[in-house]
Amino acid sequence: MEERTQVGIIGAGPAGLLLARLLKVHGVESVIVEARSRSYVENRIRAGVLEQGTVGLLEEAGVAERLHREGLVHDGVEIGSGSRRFRIDFRELVGKTVTVYGQTEVTKDLIAARLSGDGLIVWEASDVVIDDPNSNRPRLAFDVAGKRRELVCDFIAGCDGFHGVSRPTLPESIRQTFERVYPFGWVGILADVPPCSPELIYASHDHGFALASMRSLTRSRYYLQCDLDDKIEEWSDARVWDELKVRLGSASPNITTGPSIEKSIAPLRSFVSTPMQHGRLFLAGDAAHIVPPTGAKGLNLAASDVHYLCRALVAHYKTNNDDLLAAYSDTALARVWKAERFSWWMTMLLHKLHAPQSFERQMQIAELDYLASSRAAQVMLAENYVGLPF
Amino acid sequence: MEERTQVGIIGAGPAGLLLARLLKVHGVESVIVEARSRSYVENRIRAGVLEQGTVGLLEEAGVAERLHREGLVHDGVEIGSGSRRFRIDFRELVGKTVTVYGQTEVTKDLIAARLSGDGLIVWEASDVVIDDPNSNRPRLAFDVAGKRRELVCDFIAGCDGFHGVSRPTLPESIRQTFERVYPFGWVGILADVPPCSPELIYASHDHGFALASMRSLTRSRYYLQCDLDDKIEEWSDARVWDELKVRLGSASPNITTGPSIEKSIAPLRSFVSTPMQHGRLFLAGDAAHIVPPTGAKGLNLAASDVHYLCRALVAHYKTNNDDLLAAYSDTALARVWKAERFSWWMTMLLHKLHAPQSFERQMQIAELDYLASSRAAQVMLAENYVGLPF
Repeated sequence: MEERTQVGIIGAGPAGLLLARLLKVHGVESVIVEARSRSYVENRIRAGVLEQGTVGLLEEAGVAERLHREGLVHDGVEIGSGSRRFRIDFRELVGKTVTVYGQTEVTKDLIAARLSGDGLIVWEASDVVIDDPNSNRPRLAFDVAGKRRELVCDFIAGCDGFHGVSRPTLPESIRQTFERVYPFGWVGILADVPPCSPELIYASHDHGFALASMRSLTRSRYYLQCDLDDKIEEWSDARVWDELKVRLGSASPNITTGPSIEKSIAPLRSFVSTPMQHGRLFLAGDAAHIVPPTGAKGLNLAASDVHYLCRALVAHYKTNNDDLLAAYSDTALARVWKAERFSWWMTMLLHKLHAPQSFERQMQIAELDYLASSRAAQVMLAENYVGLPF
Repeated sequence: MEERTQVGIIGAGPAGLLLARLLKVHGVESVIVEARSRSYVENRIRAGVLEQGTVGLLEEAGVAERLHREGLVHDGVEIGSGSRRFRIDFRELVGKTVTVYGQTEVTKDLIAARLSGDGLIVWEASDVVIDDPNSNRPRLAFDVAGKRRELVCDFIAGCDGFHGVSRPTLPESIRQTFERVYPFGWVGILADVPPCSPELIYASHDHGFALASMRSLTRSRYYLQCDLDDKIEEWSDARVWDELKVRLGSASPNITTGPSIEKSIAPLRSFVSTPMQHGRLFLAGDAAHIVPPTGAKGLNLAASDVHYLCRALVAHYKTNNDDLLAAYSDTALARVWKAERFSWWMTMLLHKLHAPQSFERQMQIAELDYLASSRAAQVMLAENYVGLPF
């Protein structure tokens, strides 16, 4: 018997899971096909700052109960520039906040909701292929437990990340790629120690950028700008803590050190592939775009794609109107480009990129001084950080 | 007999003339020594947009009568991005305005005031040398009409521009230079035709940047981004007008063409030399810093230097307090760096710098889109354009 669903979703990351859940809330059925196992997906370490709009979507999806119980509402962030620190007060400047709640936890909540009766997740599906995306009968084919299966869909949502099969399914002739690879990486460390400060600290320092972040009041997440060719073996826990104490300036005395429970080096990349749709295949999240982590936009951008895509699919099923579906790529990309700009700007502002005596380094310092003194500049940072409206 | 004055001023450009006039208003004597002739100085074509604070200084100097009669108060500017145009409304956003009034006219007004009894301008002084700037008896030596003269001063103000003798008088060991040369130039054209629009238009276009400016309601000033190695002979009037019509989009039908009365190519440069003082020698204006003309900050920055320097000199003579003199370089540079940042940002935002399909070009487009849609971004542009507070 032919397997069918309304929306075939590739990928059980936050984009795919949130889309499935929101569709279900609006009465649209889906099947999620995921290459990895449930435990792999639930243990991936990722971002942890949710825009107010993303929290709203999780509320709409009915999965915000634990988030509101355990998440930390942050009213601002701090910016360090050399030995000086100043605060961007989101609540005062733009009347909004962000919530610190790990992507891992969002994923667990969404999987639990999905598995409580919403519908299927096919785990460990290999050799996923999208057939005839440009027809009225697109299909997902994949191997699971040694057996080839085919799922006939009305629509397919490619939520399978940067390395997934969805983006390459779009013909090369219609795709345009925009990319910037930054000449540095981030060493990230996760440790079960209390954060050094109640809010995040983004610090520009002559040694390079540092970020003091957290997942909870007992779990800290720190990052340090490092060379692209650094090996993780060169960054002992002791070296990471020592360097954090140098770069975080006045916050240093409050750093509690402890053994790392995760430590890795990641490159920073800006990437956008256009268009985000082809026939009945729609891309969402990292499948279409990557931001450098400065500014915490990755997960939030996946959520806004999902918002636009869900709204468009629901309009198709409920009102038989495909205008929103036809406009999906343009609608999503308008917001994507703004978030790409913000992430690029934060990255270029805060990282060590230039010789200390260069004009360009002075421009970074002048921009940080301006940001410290201008309400308009602070509103600009704040309105982007808490998330531009959908 | 020894010639003496309180403040020896090198340069009869707007910085030197305004300083002399403001000092006179506060009872401090000066002599201006200028390498060029009066008619040369009065006919140099330069900038034409005055910040509200600059207008305030000209009022304080008692030379704003003609400015208020003939100057054009502009409440905003327009930004072009491809075929689209949007307005930055200064008055609504920050409650301030700018005034269009040529630097040439400011110079004429200041010279007339000076020559009505304020004090001496030594024209066509050659081989100007600053002796013993670090002593209590700094001196200006120069040839005039074939005779060497020496002027003993309490203080010397170096207002002699980028190519003047003042900056090189500071020992190399204490000087730091920050510079950026941009990979393009501007073709400028002056013509006695009415402007195409009541306000300035800064236009980003795939062909390159264009600026529609004016000196009066009957005299237009236009600029086009060009290649650095373009020769002015390659830019016939016809070619300039044709290219302006392409780049200025929807304003093009309103362009009135006519013969150029001045046409030239200039490179764009960001430049800062620190410190701006050494002993009893103080630099002001282009002698210490250059901005690219995008954003019209050059003359205004000279005026703010003069404001700080005059205030400090007056404090010395009236209250015997040298704190402001000691702090002059730091005080002036704090504002200089902010204006350098703004001019660099406007330049990088609006010029053709990247391949059309590059990520960096998309960042320009995204920033223009953001500027068109965000009040905070517009306030940021407006507050810098009308001039940050002294």
